[in-house]
Amino acid sequence: MNKTSLLELLAEVQRGTLTPEQASGRLANLPFEDLDYAKIDHHRSLRNGLPEVIYAAGKSPEHTSEIFARMAATGIDVLATRADEATAAAVLAATPTAKYHQQARAITLRQSPPAAPHGHVAVLCAGTSDLPAAEEAAITAELFGAKVTRLYDVGVAGIHRLLAQRDILATANAVIVCAGMEGALPSVVGGLVAVPVIAVPTSVGYGASFSGAAALLGMLNSCSPNVCVVNIDNGFGAAYTATMIARASHR
Amino acid sequence: MNKTSLLELLAEVQRGTLTPEQASGRLANLPFEDLDYAKIDHHRSLRNGLPEVIYAAGKSPEHTSEIFARMAATGIDVLATRADEATAAAVLAATPTAKYHQQARAITLRQSPPAAPHGHVAVLCAGTSDLPAAEEAAITAELFGAKVTRLYDVGVAGIHRLLAQRDILATANAVIVCAGMEGALPSVVGGLVAVPVIAVPTSVGYGASFSGAAALLGMLNSCSPNVCVVNIDNGFGAAYTATMIARASHR
Amino acid sequence: MNKTSLLELLAEVQRGTLTPEQASGRLANLPFEDLDYAKIDHHRSLRNGLPEVIYAAGKSPEHTSEIFARMAATGIDVLATRADEATAAAVLAATPTAKYHQQARAITLRQSPPAAPHGHVAVLCAGTSDLPAAEEAAITAELFGAKVTRLYDVGVAGIHRLLAQRDILATANAVIVCAGMEGALPSVVGGLVAVPVIAVPTSVGYGASFSGAAALLGMLNSCSPNVCVVNIDNGFGAAYTATMIARASHR
Amino acid sequence: MNKTSLLELLAEVQRGTLTPEQASGRLANLPFEDLDYAKIDHHRSLRNGLPEVIYAAGKSPEHTSEIFARMAATGIDVLATRADEATAAAVLAATPTAKYHQQARAITLRQSPPAAPHGHVAVLCAGTSDLPAAEEAAITAELFGAKVTRLYDVGVAGIHRLLAQRDILATANAVIVCAGMEGALPSVVGGLVAVPVIAVPTSVGYGASFSGAAALLGMLNSCSPNVCVVNIDNGFGAAYTATMIARASHR
Amino acid sequence: MNKTSLLELLAEVQRGTLTPEQASGRLANLPFEDLDYAKIDHHRSLRNGLPEVIYAAGKSPEHTSEIFARMAATGIDVLATRADEATAAAVLAATPTAKYHQQARAITLRQSPPAAPHGHVAVLCAGTSDLPAAEEAAITAELFGAKVTRLYDVGVAGIHRLLAQRDILATANAVIVCAGMEGALPSVVGGLVAVPVIAVPTSVGYGASFSGAAALLGMLNSCSPNVCVVNIDNGFGAAYTATMIARASHR
Amino acid sequence: MNKTSLLELLAEVQRGTLTPEQASGRLANLPFEDLDYAKIDHHRSLRNGLPEVIYAAGKSPEHTSEIFARMAATGIDVLATRADEATAAAVLAATPTAKYHQQARAITLRQSPPAAPHGHVAVLCAGTSDLPAAEEAAITAELFGAKVTRLYDVGVAGIHRLLAQRDILATANAVIVCAGMEGALPSVVGGLVAVPVIAVPTSVGYGASFSGAAALLGMLNSCSPNVCVVNIDNGFGAAYTATMIARASHR
Amino acid sequence: MNKTSLLELLAEVQRGTLTPEQASGRLANLPFEDLDYAKIDHHRSLRNGLPEVIYAAGKSPEHTSEIFARMAATGIDVLATRADEATAAAVLAATPTAKYHQQARAITLRQSPPAAPHGHVAVLCAGTSDLPAAEEAAITAELFGAKVTRLYDVGVAGIHRLLAQRDILATANAVIVCAGMEGALPSVVGGLVAVPVIAVPTSVGYGASFSGAAALLGMLNSCSPNVCVVNIDNGFGAAYTATMIARASHR
Amino acid sequence: MNKTSLLELLAEVQRGTLTPEQASGRLANLPFEDLDYAKIDHHRSLRNGLPEVIYAAGKSPEHTSEIFARMAATGIDVLATRADEATAAAVLAATPTAKYHQQARAITLRQSPPAAPHGHVAVLCAGTSDLPAAEEAAITAELFGAKVTRLYDVGVAGIHRLLAQRDILATANAVIVCAGMEGALPSVVGGLVAVPVIAVPTSVGYGASFSGAAALLGMLNSCSPNVCVVNIDNGFGAAYTATMIARASHR
Repeated sequence: MNKTSLLELLAEVQRGTLTPEQASGRLANLPFEDLDYAKIDHHRSLRNGLPEVIYAAGKSPEHTSEIFARMAATGIDVLATRADEATAAAVLAATPTAKYHQQARAITLRQSPPAAPHGHVAVLCAGTSDLPAAEEAAITAELFGAKVTRLYDVGVAGIHRLLAQRDILATANAVIVCAGMEGALPSVVGGLVAVPVIAVPTSVGYGASFSGAAALLGMLNSCSPNVCVVNIDNGFGAAYTATMIARASHR
Repeated sequence: MNKTSLLELLAEVQRGTLTPEQASGRLANLPFEDLDYAKIDHHRSLRNGLPEVIYAAGKSPEHTSEIFARMAATGIDVLATRADEATAAAVLAATPTAKYHQQARAITLRQSPPAAPHGHVAVLCAGTSDLPAAEEAAITAELFGAKVTRLYDVGVAGIHRLLAQRDILATANAVIVCAGMEGALPSVVGGLVAVPVIAVPTSVGYGASFSGAAALLGMLNSCSPNVCVVNIDNGFGAAYTATMIARASHR
Repeated sequence: MNKTSLLELLAEVQRGTLTPEQASGRLANLPFEDLDYAKIDHHRSLRNGLPEVIYAAGKSPEHTSEIFARMAATGIDVLATRADEATAAAVLAATPTAKYHQQARAITLRQSPPAAPHGHVAVLCAGTSDLPAAEEAAITAELFGAKVTRLYDVGVAGIHRLLAQRDILATANAVIVCAGMEGALPSVVGGLVAVPVIAVPTSVGYGASFSGAAALLGMLNSCSPNVCVVNIDNGFGAAYTATMIARASHR
Repeated sequence: MNKTSLLELLAEVQRGTLTPEQASGRLANLPFEDLDYAKIDHHRSLRNGLPEVIYAAGKSPEHTSEIFARMAATGIDVLATRADEATAAAVLAATPTAKYHQQARAITLRQSPPAAPHGHVAVLCAGTSDLPAAEEAAITAELFGAKVTRLYDVGVAGIHRLLAQRDILATANAVIVCAGMEGALPSVVGGLVAVPVIAVPTSVGYGASFSGAAALLGMLNSCSPNVCVVNIDNGFGAAYTATMIARASHR
Repeated sequence: MNKTSLLELLAEVQRGTLTPEQASGRLANLPFEDLDYAKIDHHRSLRNGLPEVIYAAGKSPEHTSEIFARMAATGIDVLATRADEATAAAVLAATPTAKYHQQARAITLRQSPPAAPHGHVAVLCAGTSDLPAAEEAAITAELFGAKVTRLYDVGVAGIHRLLAQRDILATANAVIVCAGMEGALPSVVGGLVAVPVIAVPTSVGYGASFSGAAALLGMLNSCSPNVCVVNIDNGFGAAYTATMIARASHR
Repeated sequence: MNKTSLLELLAEVQRGTLTPEQASGRLANLPFEDLDYAKIDHHRSLRNGLPEVIYAAGKSPEHTSEIFARMAATGIDVLATRADEATAAAVLAATPTAKYHQQARAITLRQSPPAAPHGHVAVLCAGTSDLPAAEEAAITAELFGAKVTRLYDVGVAGIHRLLAQRDILATANAVIVCAGMEGALPSVVGGLVAVPVIAVPTSVGYGASFSGAAALLGMLNSCSPNVCVVNIDNGFGAAYTATMIARASHR
Repeated sequence: MNKTSLLELLAEVQRGTLTPEQASGRLANLPFEDLDYAKIDHHRSLRNGLPEVIYAAGKSPEHTSEIFARMAATGIDVLATRADEATAAAVLAATPTAKYHQQARAITLRQSPPAAPHGHVAVLCAGTSDLPAAEEAAITAELFGAKVTRLYDVGVAGIHRLLAQRDILATANAVIVCAGMEGALPSVVGGLVAVPVIAVPTSVGYGASFSGAAALLGMLNSCSPNVCVVNIDNGFGAAYTATMIARASHR
Repeated sequence: MNKTSLLELLAEVQRGTLTPEQASGRLANLPFEDLDYAKIDHHRSLRNGLPEVIYAAGKSPEHTSEIFARMAATGIDVLATRADEATAAAVLAATPTAKYHQQARAITLRQSPPAAPHGHVAVLCAGTSDLPAAEEAAITAELFGAKVTRLYDVGVAGIHRLLAQRDILATANAVIVCAGMEGALPSVVGGLVAVPVIAVPTSVGYGASFSGAAALLGMLNSCSPNVCVVNIDNGFGAAYTATMIARASHR
């Protein structure tokens, strides 16, 4: 039942061709979700103002390219994550205005008018191997409208590198910290800032890192209470939440 | 080196009894952290405006009571988490104005003047067994200055109970979701709101719940990108971050 | 909004004091779940005809007793699982017509009129230590209206004990198999029957049984395709599903 | 000992060349299993009416093709699961009437006469990445004689998509739910239907999904008591059991 | 069907009141397992000559005592494992001729006539904390008729202690090695002897020993090919197999 | 110190140029292991009479071929396990009398004179996918001098297939059971025979088989006390121990 | 063979009653380990100069007390670790000059003459809950002769607390770092010092700390190459190694 | 702020254009870490005298080659670990004086003048498959200035091979032990020497070795107190710490 058919039903009640009792029966069984569906989607996009997102892993280049193009046609911003070179080639062939960010494995298309950034997100990573997750976070946050400061290669084994950035850190509305191996960086950062820290364990490491599980466990046990955690290598999810926080802080 | 001794050093430069080069050498080696220590602490409390917190688990009732009383004497708000009955008795004997919240296993002391709440935090839990974590979160968020709405027993096996609360959910600045067993609730809630969801896996369950590990893994793999996760049963940490977000959103 | 207020709204449309457009707006936002809630509950009980169930673990005896009594007052059958002796004493004090099944740790109250059983469920267990889970399953299935055949202590290390029961097995509409240790029994049973086998891993064992995890993994990897699995020690859940199957088979 | 030799033995008793005592001794030691073997197989196929199944993973294309052709020659329906493109090519070369279902990685051969479906199985999946498991389940259930309704991409992060299908769900005799990541969908579905839900965890996800272990644990801990679980990606097993249930419900 | 009814059936064939074909049909369905059951049991005890065994863990003292007494009444040797003090008291009250071995947590009753030992089993343990498992193994092997040599506290960190026993080791027909912590002893022993080594991981250790899992994994990965492994703390099972080997070697 | 220098030392004592006290001091520090080394190796081969073995996994074809040829030159039997096609080609090029067993991934060279088999080892496997481990065991046991009976594809889901082989099983001196998935077969076999059962978990399976861990755990928890376990896919180790047992039983 | 019998053998060679060849044969088979045993022990204590150590966990108070007293009687220093109050009472009753360190759960007896410390060991811990492990390390290192500096409660969430101690850290010959929860401290310390860091994961934490496993994994993955790790809560082992290093550095 | 700007600030104080109070404020906020950064790095290289190290895994050959060349240009020794053939080719093309160690997967460049070795490190491995980790350790220790003794293939299943090397072991200042499978070697070695043993679990093994986890757990549970552990296959880290110890012991 769409809005038209609902109005029609109510018009029948108005005309007297349907009693309130009959209408009540129909409405009690109405597939409200169809109405609801549109409404929620509408509300969500209005409130969020966030781009559409495609998770490209496990999709064929053609499939991703087609979805991307269809979304692009609606005039909104579009983001594809976990896109390899082949996928990027296919997407850019169909949507030449899109841009591929190799390290982040992300494709972005900005169609919204330029605007002042909505809040400030700092993206840190412990080592250069954490760059894919960090760049996925940074690219996402930028597309979602935040000012992004990248503070890379500030791992805890050379703590002065991090401490040197304390002033910049202090201006962020939310901080994303990507780290593999022992995953210790979010705890240290959490002690230096007064905003939420979104920790991204990365699959960087070998042996007893168990593909990021060691970093994940470390972050979940952080002694800094302003640290919360997303899935291993999930730079996108971290940026999604961090942007929400930055945006709220910026209003 | 404290501020006095720093001023003294600089005064020597001013008097000419120390050349800039000599002072530079000393300052390069100065135990800046002592200065820094006080400064950071000061800044932190000024910026955060958050109470002092004691983690009572593994501390003796006497120890917790003494720390609590010393903090209380400074006039700030105080929170003790994971406090059992014996600890509560000891704390309240020494600090009669404190209050024990049995289900939350928390002791609070509010000494700050009443104020309008700083943002709105919704605290959900899937079942009644999740109440300890949920109440720890709720009590913490309230003491930290947020308006808290409790939506309890809204697990996914009866999804209509959750959907009925959608309007209230829509007004929260941050949402805390506590769930054990399969830990599915945060994903559903994440799809209904446009603010960050802090997921708290609880140790509720048996057998293959492995003391909350199943819920933890479920939440980390949430298909809703606005979900991030804290440690099992860590209601306090969730409230700490949620309050930061709500506060930022409220400004 | 309940039915009365819905009728009132529709009456306003009929009277012309509300236009269809106005009513459409209100209905789009109506808390349909309240209506929905009652309806679903009603439908569910009508379709299922199953008793109300209380999971007593982690609830105080008083709490369980009170819930039990309130449910009993509605005239339906009631089941409490994971009830210890103290809980049983409290429940039977308040509801003397209830019955405690010690080995199953279950309390039942039958208030429905006697009826022919709805299908046949066989409950097997590998050893005598699996009895708590097996009895929980058997008691549940009986209260839910099935004929139950108990075949206990038929573990695979003495395979002839199981084979001797093949004729009885052949008449069951669904089979529940409880086993700890290596959890091999469901695979063997699955090869002997042509109906679904619900496997219940039990926490029986020591060392590398890891509290039932070994049995759980074994059952999930069963080479018999008609085996599906529930949580460790979850005799209740197995009986719930098995009764549904038996009932459907019986019609 | 086959049937012929048994009849011969009994004929000897009839002729008096063997006393009952002598025959008793021989029969007590007879390799009854040989008889039994044939009998069970016969009984099984008569009762089940289910096709022969080949698990193609780990078998060479030639091997699978040969087994498939030999089974096909007996005139019954045949199913091969986990068949890659090369295997499909080999099978179809030898058995041109077989059909390859790429997404399900399944090869089917229907030789039985058309018949009205035996019951109704709904197959749900949370996201498009779960399609291989879902299609394996759907193709299997169809070949086994059930009416199959596919409800795909109804994950819990957009709960309205699922709720919109509630009417269709209500008509199913058994429901199969495939989901990776947090594996939350079966719990929600279990709360909406009054029939058994067979949950299939899929290996979809990354990082802390641990190749489907997170979804598996979530489903085993489901708070809906009508959920039972099969191995990761085991769409075939889920369909095998669901078809048994649907068939029993349909009689 | 017992022997009587089988003879009756065959007599009917003899009398001609049953045709061979009719008898064949009945025999194909006969509950052969009942016959089989008795036969197997008889064969087993004849071939094994091993005592009856009761696993007392999880059984009440009364229950264990009653089973023990009933077995004792048949005149055979009896063993109860995992028996605590209370169980031992109950058993010895009812069966005064039984003997309690505190460290082994075992109760034995020898009723068979004295005989020369059947082979030689060496039982080693790495440290004094492994004594419960080692003694369970030693007591079991002795009751089962083997000569047992105990070589205790010969852990690998003081390798000379083990090397000093090489001559004694060389005379054993089977070797049982109990070790917790890193579980390294079986590999070293395996390199010193030319007979099977049964490795018993013990739950001795702390932290990353994970209740014996570290020792278990170490033993499974032994670089000595004559090492095989039983469950954690399963001294009984190790002795059962080692006695079989010693006995076979002794003939 | 080699034998020559030892003799020299003792000659000095004989000549009186060294007192017994001086010689005692030197001998206490002598590198006896060099002597010991040769002796032990000699003793081992004399006692064991077992071939030399090469573990080819992780070695280059050239390396394996060279070691194989050097061992072959000594005239003894040689076995290489885990050898792929390329390794086999290299070995057979250098040692044309060797033989490659493809399914077992083993290369054997028999140079010892023909002899009556030393005992009887039965090798069982649950399904055809377990053949690599089973054949590795069978080929090894044969080369080591045992009579080997292969009983393949006797998994527990069709228990009659196993029961039909009971007579053959009864004649084995040791039984090797290879099984993946749920690993249930050893428990059933253990209940049918009166000799040691060496269980080999195989990496056959998918999803929650976790590369053989499920089968491994199942076997370690076997309720049959005559079952002991080797590493996943370790057919060689099982045969090594089983041959020792068979040989001892055969004497 | 003890020293006497060796001298006798050599005397026979001297007397000519034994040829060098005959003596060589006997010596090749001599149970050198008995000689060796005493010798090694002697060497070890001479080289190490370390006290005797008793691991009291799992030993009865009487047993520990007796061993302690017997060791004390030899005049050397003695250490008992993991000693509870009851054990301490028993030990001090028998050996009144011993001293109990409650937090370290250690009992020490110093009998060696006072000496200048052998090197400098710094013992750090992240939080006050890590004190038992840290104190066990500190007490051990002191008894073993090192100068010990305790730097407690310097966790990474307040990094300035650690940085303030950099000068003291710089003078240590070896550093022990005890930390639970995320176990991040060793990595930071490793970056600040130029000596080995022995990391001790502690079982401090809850939920996903899995009793210290999270800290253990974090430390094993440390990005500082001068970090090595001991078992969870193993303060004794860390001090044992650290003292060896400090002693070597001090020479 | 660099040194120039610090001097400038202090000069202003000297000139009186800045009061001590003003300077104090500025210095309290100064980015001391920039100064600190250079200083620490300088101090570290001065104290350590260790080469620069590149972890080549996950870096492109070009990237590694460029970093290597830039470091080489400063005249110091350089080490690249985990370098495959392609990386080695790229590095040697740009820096022809570098040397590739294939088995160690390491590239070294020695530019420091020849010097007497700083202490003695023994590197042991259990089997030939452990060579990559052992050689990485040996090459690293040599480049870092230690005398290295390689004792390879001395696994515990042939314990005499190890015992034969006891004299050489006794002269080492630190011992590195690499072992996969059960990881038992460090415990045995720890009992033979009086210096720290750095244990390196290797990923050698199959099945239940779980890629080195079994060896890792074994080593963490070592009963020799002088054993500490690094990450799986981390030969570099072991050598880094061992060299520190050897160097300290050598002074």
